[in-house]
Amino acid sequence: MNSSLRQFMPERADRYFSGNSAQRAVARTLFESVADLPLICPHGHVDPLLFADATYHFESPAELFLIPDHYVFRMLYSQGVSLEAQGLAVNEGEDASKVESNHRKIWQTFAEHYHLFQGTPTGLWLRDELHDLFGITEKLTPSNAQSFYDRIADRLAAPEFTPRKLYEQFRVEALTTTDAATDTLEHHQAIRDSDWSGRIYPTFRPDKVVNGIDQPAWKEQIDLLCAVSGIDIRDYSAYISALESRRDFFSEMGATATDHAAETPFTEVLSPSEADAIFQRGLAGKASAADARRFTAHMLVEMARMSSEDGLVMQLHPGSIRNHNAEVFRRFGADKGADIPHALDFTRNLKPLLDRFGSHRSLRLILFTLDESTSARELAPLAGHYPILRIGPPWWFYDSINGMQNFFAQVMETAGIYNTVGFNDDTRAFASIPTRHELWRRVACDWLAGLLVEGQIDDDEAFAMAHALAYGLAKEAYGL
Amino acid sequence: MNSSLRQFMPERADRYFSGNSAQRAVARTLFESVADLPLICPHGHVDPLLFADATYHFESPAELFLIPDHYVFRMLYSQGVSLEAQGLAVNEGEDASKVESNHRKIWQTFAEHYHLFQGTPTGLWLRDELHDLFGITEKLTPSNAQSFYDRIADRLAAPEFTPRKLYEQFRVEALTTTDAATDTLEHHQAIRDSDWSGRIYPTFRPDKVVNGIDQPAWKEQIDLLCAVSGIDIRDYSAYISALESRRDFFSEMGATATDHAAETPFTEVLSPSEADAIFQRGLAGKASAADARRFTAHMLVEMARMSSEDGLVMQLHPGSIRNHNAEVFRRFGADKGADIPHALDFTRNLKPLLDRFGSHRSLRLILFTLDESTSARELAPLAGHYPILRIGPPWWFYDSINGMQNFFAQVMETAGIYNTVGFNDDTRAFASIPTRHELWRRVACDWLAGLLVEGQIDDDEAFAMAHALAYGLAKEAYGL
Amino acid sequence: MNSSLRQFMPERADRYFSGNSAQRAVARTLFESVADLPLICPHGHVDPLLFADATYHFESPAELFLIPDHYVFRMLYSQGVSLEAQGLAVNEGEDASKVESNHRKIWQTFAEHYHLFQGTPTGLWLRDELHDLFGITEKLTPSNAQSFYDRIADRLAAPEFTPRKLYEQFRVEALTTTDAATDTLEHHQAIRDSDWSGRIYPTFRPDKVVNGIDQPAWKEQIDLLCAVSGIDIRDYSAYISALESRRDFFSEMGATATDHAAETPFTEVLSPSEADAIFQRGLAGKASAADARRFTAHMLVEMARMSSEDGLVMQLHPGSIRNHNAEVFRRFGADKGADIPHALDFTRNLKPLLDRFGSHRSLRLILFTLDESTSARELAPLAGHYPILRIGPPWWFYDSINGMQNFFAQVMETAGIYNTVGFNDDTRAFASIPTRHELWRRVACDWLAGLLVEGQIDDDEAFAMAHALAYGLAKEAYGL
Repeated sequence: MNSSLRQFMPERADRYFSGNSAQRAVARTLFESVADLPLICPHGHVDPLLFADATYHFESPAELFLIPDHYVFRMLYSQGVSLEAQGLAVNEGEDASKVESNHRKIWQTFAEHYHLFQGTPTGLWLRDELHDLFGITEKLTPSNAQSFYDRIADRLAAPEFTPRKLYEQFRVEALTTTDAATDTLEHHQAIRDSDWSGRIYPTFRPDKVVNGIDQPAWKEQIDLLCAVSGIDIRDYSAYISALESRRDFFSEMGATATDHAAETPFTEVLSPSEADAIFQRGLAGKASAADARRFTAHMLVEMARMSSEDGLVMQLHPGSIRNHNAEVFRRFGADKGADIPHALDFTRNLKPLLDRFGSHRSLRLILFTLDESTSARELAPLAGHYPILRIGPPWWFYDSINGMQNFFAQVMETAGIYNTVGFNDDTRAFASIPTRHELWRRVACDWLAGLLVEGQIDDDEAFAMAHALAYGLAKEAYGL
Repeated sequence: MNSSLRQFMPERADRYFSGNSAQRAVARTLFESVADLPLICPHGHVDPLLFADATYHFESPAELFLIPDHYVFRMLYSQGVSLEAQGLAVNEGEDASKVESNHRKIWQTFAEHYHLFQGTPTGLWLRDELHDLFGITEKLTPSNAQSFYDRIADRLAAPEFTPRKLYEQFRVEALTTTDAATDTLEHHQAIRDSDWSGRIYPTFRPDKVVNGIDQPAWKEQIDLLCAVSGIDIRDYSAYISALESRRDFFSEMGATATDHAAETPFTEVLSPSEADAIFQRGLAGKASAADARRFTAHMLVEMARMSSEDGLVMQLHPGSIRNHNAEVFRRFGADKGADIPHALDFTRNLKPLLDRFGSHRSLRLILFTLDESTSARELAPLAGHYPILRIGPPWWFYDSINGMQNFFAQVMETAGIYNTVGFNDDTRAFASIPTRHELWRRVACDWLAGLLVEGQIDDDEAFAMAHALAYGLAKEAYGL
Repeated sequence: MNSSLRQFMPERADRYFSGNSAQRAVARTLFESVADLPLICPHGHVDPLLFADATYHFESPAELFLIPDHYVFRMLYSQGVSLEAQGLAVNEGEDASKVESNHRKIWQTFAEHYHLFQGTPTGLWLRDELHDLFGITEKLTPSNAQSFYDRIADRLAAPEFTPRKLYEQFRVEALTTTDAATDTLEHHQAIRDSDWSGRIYPTFRPDKVVNGIDQPAWKEQIDLLCAVSGIDIRDYSAYISALESRRDFFSEMGATATDHAAETPFTEVLSPSEADAIFQRGLAGKASAADARRFTAHMLVEMARMSSEDGLVMQLHPGSIRNHNAEVFRRFGADKGADIPHALDFTRNLKPLLDRFGSHRSLRLILFTLDESTSARELAPLAGHYPILRIGPPWWFYDSINGMQNFFAQVMETAGIYNTVGFNDDTRAFASIPTRHELWRRVACDWLAGLLVEGQIDDDEAFAMAHALAYGLAKEAYGL
């Protein structure tokens, strides 16, 4: 029965392009023009250790594909497979007896639930990675799972399968990591001290010393900040000095950007005395939730001020309620697939920051969203006006074919492509990077092909825009 | 002039499929594979009397198609046709002199405004029902309206046109009704006592004894609850006992689910003493609007608790401001096409419930929305993580081709299809049920065809997903 | 390399139609049936002086296309080109030394940034205007910019290039302007006094005497209102009388509509004494921001009351935070491309107005939105029920191909096309009017073509709907 449909499935080279034959032909030509461009990876979460250690190898297929990937384990969890059965470590003090340590079993469990990923970006990434990295062309099933495991494991052990060699094979031109303000950047130092020429740079992410001033963990982070900065942080001005000092250090280590997460894009300018009063309450363990909200809001403006002075590109990632599942957070910790978006308001919340810095000549602020309804309504009009603003690519739940198509449809008419910053993979899964960039490039070229066949752009424009979206915009936006 | 376009209109068998010939061919093949599957109708509003009375016949074409259908009469009302002219009864005490009782006249008025439904789902349903049930292939016009009326009326009077016979003709496998907590389920009992083997089950919908504790009507409902439960409800714990007793009765009568409507998905856990204090104020007629809001929020959690114990699948339908038109509500009562959606927040509002029951092993909570902006932003991430959650199909204003296409585009990438529950028709119009399911199946198959021609899924996956969306998911989700 | 794509670019006659050949063929036929219909322009911002002065000529290409167009200059501003360099005048007291007065230089700067408009509606409008009005078929580049400037300037100076002659050439049937409540309508009087038969009518827009009662500027406007009405406005009832008197004057001058902008659609009914108390605080310069918000809300209901009596169609344009960029507002004034939308709630905010007038027999209220998430969720259900409501076309940032496609997809299934009001160009750029209407007609016909090839509508319906969307609905809705 199935064979009658096979004829309508595209060649692999045409995947993710429109079913319309003219649009597909245009998309293919555009994609060919950008397929071999180097990869710019200006925002991600790859561990720099992978490059500091010249002989690093991935431990197992489960370690490579499953255990660190919240897209994967949260889907199985949603269908009743426990996180322990998927090999996730529990927090100290929690019962660890049910944590599966046999990676073959974890892989088998995954294979038995692989159908859950039908029609999802995770399914596409996995399929394409198995194909491109491991030459696997069949679909994963419970019965072939163990033989695939063997094939992947063999390849992981091969001498050419180190992150450094993959970096070159993938044609990465530059890759940035995300690092706490208190990070010593020792792995980055090791890379710089080595004879390897890959461009791995840190990104300054001070969330832990900025957010949550009402939480005990914040005070511990301030202690760490004292230690790494060598500054005795007893008041707000010392705190600012310590942050500036850390930013300088990150810049020296190659950073070109900072990154900031917040539940909302709320910004507010506090007077120095207000800021210090809240800061002192934080040090004394007496800050309130309202204090924390206002302090984060103030520090976003302060970070914009610092960026206007030191030139680090500022990124803002708002909109996720982190660790929404209280039980999972207690037992397994943060980042376990339970970060849930909510509705955002950029228009009013960013105004205090923009009133100060919106037209600054040497500041760039890249905005990301998890609320698609803000894309056409707020982000595109804001970035289509304010000189400092650019719009980041579809993020997280929107790093998908529909997410990208919506992004093009919702942002570009008002902001134009030149107020956007191309793609970033935002991943900790290094091996998935070429797959993700290829998906973006395919979907971008298909969008442009649609504009061309509908008479909105001509061929010259299509080629130029494809190059910009695939490569040029990201490189320029982050100064890489 | 028109004839030049006729050639581009599809065969009837291909309606609602893409204009792209490859996608259409795939959609047709997929649809053929599911077209004859039985219908699972796990949520709707058909009157069980239709099946309790073995000889029930529909009164007239106007009674079948127009008078009970808020999709129809609100559209004519929006264009200046009074509700009286459409045969809607007024409340006691209101002037009934202008209520049209001649069903032929009502039908004629409808035919004169039939163009209002161009490009609407109501227009498609009506057209397809006229075709499939009555063999009418021409378009309804003012001039053919009376002859169509005759044809339909003749058929309605035919011996085979009883709901029981239609149930079999439609290949319904199971159908649930929606019933107040205080309902005696006498019609369901009559069906069980009969020799007819159709599977008609009740659904426990306690809104009237849960919502509006600040309204006089609530107290009347509690009196009814006392009467049917045989429990003297003088405090909150007796109230809970009465509800549990009613749930047990519904379960005995075949119910597998409950249903809950609320203006928002706000949940909150009250202490027993707080809950009882509000309850006592309700009994005394002294509850406030804030009391009502909190009591509903608390009772949603309490209903989840009961479902976790008795296994009834819980459904939540939030987001409609009911009876928005004050004048229409006063004169004609509830459900007159004036229920208007508003923006929702599931992420924060559901957290108290999810903190208690989000990972429960034997609870299932199906969420519906009237705010499409929550689909990708909140529902898909929530259902893609929490084991208890599933996402209900596009509801009400979104039970349409665009609504379904948006649903597929917005939900599936993050949640996967297996965190959704297939289709339900949610209708009180029994005769429209096959039409609605066919529309869903067509649109679902067309979506899958699009994924296939774009290389996102293969043929095996497409057939499996088509079956799940058309039949399997609904059956499994509701245990039918 | 590029030539391989040329073959896939459509004929100019097929631009903005689907790439699907069947849909395109249908769209072309439908478009041909409406392409030559007269233009109804029921809402816009063209200066009536253009028609009062029989010999008016546009000053230069920069004056025609660039300097007054906030779509254009905000885009260049967002990429670092100052507003001064684009020829925008600064406010009194600001440094005017850098304002470019050489229109050739402004044009050149624009040409050097023309790529910013790739894939934007502004890019399409400009391209089509250059083609249709000036016969320019090549793309604007820095190197051809000056020769194009010459060609355009020559044509602008030609005797047939007056607004009155263009009005006829464009086949405009009626065009309305937007005028302050205090406007003397002298240009409209001059048109009426002339021998020219063009139909140019005013629209009553009282924002400046209604909004901002807490601002000094409001009091100045009230003084103006006293002067033009001849009424000594010392209390709320005199204020109402003055407004009613102005509305009568506008009606006499041909107005058929009013227009109202507000940050939100919030409505509220104040008692006469409350209204007068706020009004008195406003006169005394002591009104608060809360007063201003409530007064606007009340006045929207009051304007609905007046419309129900004098028959002027009421338009409501909510949702923009005006003059978001504080620095640009201070230096350049209002309307400089820094008006940013935010999330709206029509459902609750309009209820007080609808409670009073929702089912009125002789009132029409047309709603516009800048928050697309309200289209399917709120506007379509509201307009699909309330007799007084109609939905205005996609506005501002949504006056684009995607905006129109979204509008059709989000509004029509629930509201039907007959609860919408066709198109309006909403522009101050008179020469762009045919281009904008043609874009709308093309996109509307393509939408209908999609419905036809998918079997949702037949050919008769498609032709009727195309005519309504292109012409009939706007004419009927505004009584033009």
